[in-house]
Amino acid sequence: MTILALTGGVGGAKLSLGLTHVLTPNEITFVVNVGDDFEHMGLSISPDIDTLTYTLAGVVNEATGWGRADESWDCLTELKSFEADTWFQLGDRDLALHLFRTALLKRGKSLTEVTDIVCSRLGVKYKVAPATDASLRTRVVTDQGSLAFQDYFVRLKCEPKVSELEYHQRTIASLSPAIDPDDVSGVVICPSNPFLSIDPILELDEMRSLLTNRDFPVVAVSPIVGDRAIKGPTAKMMREMNMSATCAGVAQHYHELLDGYVIDDIDAHHASEIEALGIRIRNAPSIMRTIEDKVALAKVCVDFLEELR
Amino acid sequence: MTILALTGGVGGAKLSLGLTHVLTPNEITFVVNVGDDFEHMGLSISPDIDTLTYTLAGVVNEATGWGRADESWDCLTELKSFEADTWFQLGDRDLALHLFRTALLKRGKSLTEVTDIVCSRLGVKYKVAPATDASLRTRVVTDQGSLAFQDYFVRLKCEPKVSELEYHQRTIASLSPAIDPDDVSGVVICPSNPFLSIDPILELDEMRSLLTNRDFPVVAVSPIVGDRAIKGPTAKMMREMNMSATCAGVAQHYHELLDGYVIDDIDAHHASEIEALGIRIRNAPSIMRTIEDKVALAKVCVDFLEELR
Repeated sequence: MTILALTGGVGGAKLSLGLTHVLTPNEITFVVNVGDDFEHMGLSISPDIDTLTYTLAGVVNEATGWGRADESWDCLTELKSFEADTWFQLGDRDLALHLFRTALLKRGKSLTEVTDIVCSRLGVKYKVAPATDASLRTRVVTDQGSLAFQDYFVRLKCEPKVSELEYHQRTIASLSPAIDPDDVSGVVICPSNPFLSIDPILELDEMRSLLTNRDFPVVAVSPIVGDRAIKGPTAKMMREMNMSATCAGVAQHYHELLDGYVIDDIDAHHASEIEALGIRIRNAPSIMRTIEDKVALAKVCVDFLEELR
Repeated sequence: MTILALTGGVGGAKLSLGLTHVLTPNEITFVVNVGDDFEHMGLSISPDIDTLTYTLAGVVNEATGWGRADESWDCLTELKSFEADTWFQLGDRDLALHLFRTALLKRGKSLTEVTDIVCSRLGVKYKVAPATDASLRTRVVTDQGSLAFQDYFVRLKCEPKVSELEYHQRTIASLSPAIDPDDVSGVVICPSNPFLSIDPILELDEMRSLLTNRDFPVVAVSPIVGDRAIKGPTAKMMREMNMSATCAGVAQHYHELLDGYVIDDIDAHHASEIEALGIRIRNAPSIMRTIEDKVALAKVCVDFLEELR
């Protein structure tokens, strides 16, 4: 039986790395958001899969949480001199993965197969699965119109005011064949952006149905600590969508999906509000700076699942 | 009125650079082979256009004659670790041009427009025109079957034995709109491979008809010096196709197209054989090592055209 960890990029990848120190490759599958995937200058780019893969392979840039360590930027420098689009940070080493993925997809490989090959070449022994092989693209409906995710997130730096998210093709997209719905013993929802990273996974009909008719527990880790997003626009988006930008607001958003919820000690005062929703609470330090932080938080999640089983 | 210089990559680019020292941007248009163009890992690559553009921009790698000076190879190093196709030498800086071109083509720009933009961004004031905007792909028929050009040239290092060349779409492809057939005062055929670089231009119906019904002279510079190709597989291919692998053999191949032919001093003994074809001869040092060599040979070509006019 396998635990599924639902994850986006940077924050989710930190907990995911922790989980690999607590569980063996047979015990966990990482289900990664593909709603941020896009085509850029002919390249097929999967930012969240790459961040997770680089993190698990130990080659991620620790300072940013994404991209390659020891990166060089000669290509991007030249692109600037061409006055080309350079809002997406294409490092020279990172480019190799985009080219490799693009070539394999063009040869007819699925994103699941490509991700498997990339993990194997980078020495990642854990199973990393795109949520779906379908081309699922999140659109962000804002005061500046409906934007492709990367337009909103990278090019416009999350500045437009969000009113709604759109997850295209969610009803027809199948789960990646790397995910076995009959073999799930629990789910960890990583502390990623609920709207941009987790909902595009949850909105897949097959995932929704797996989580609705289940005999295994689901726990989430709050991406909001001390009423602020650890990273990224989660809190800003929640305010814009008239939600409470707290760990409790996120719990309300996931609500019936959750059996357990891990919040930071600093947010203990939100506990009763969340427990009123029928969700069990575990307090644990949730800001992951060191590998020890990541492993400790991962252990809390796995123990919590065991307790709820 | 404009001189057209028909050129492929390295050898042709050397003479082309010389021509820019002898003629102003209004006086010459470079018409470049696109039969070597190909798609690689999602990128649209035009090797001959790039070699010429880099050469005229002064950023070419002088040691190889192609690619960028001060190149770095971090992307290619990573591609090797992915066990990806690395037979095509993708430098980090060079990649920027491939990405930029690919992005512009995807936005609906023609190759003529893209080439114009690239030249302008690289500070090249001369008009560089792809022979055609059509997707013209040379195939090399060999003892190992019919091969895409890059397969033959780069991946298989010109080792297969050539029996024939195939120029697809040649009858339907139009000349680039950057070429004005009514404004031509002369043609220089650069010392590029006749089969791989020049014939794919000559085989375009509009070019063939321009050169057949003309009131301007055409001169070529022999790519064979001392019965050897200066660079690349010209002589080897000629032997395989049962042609005389000499400057005279190339003259016979071009034959009725030529009014004048520039051969190296070392090949003076071939002169009478070529003159018997009704082609005028000019002897000049044809191995271009220094910029002075290039300018001197270019001047011979331009003076020769003037004389034949």
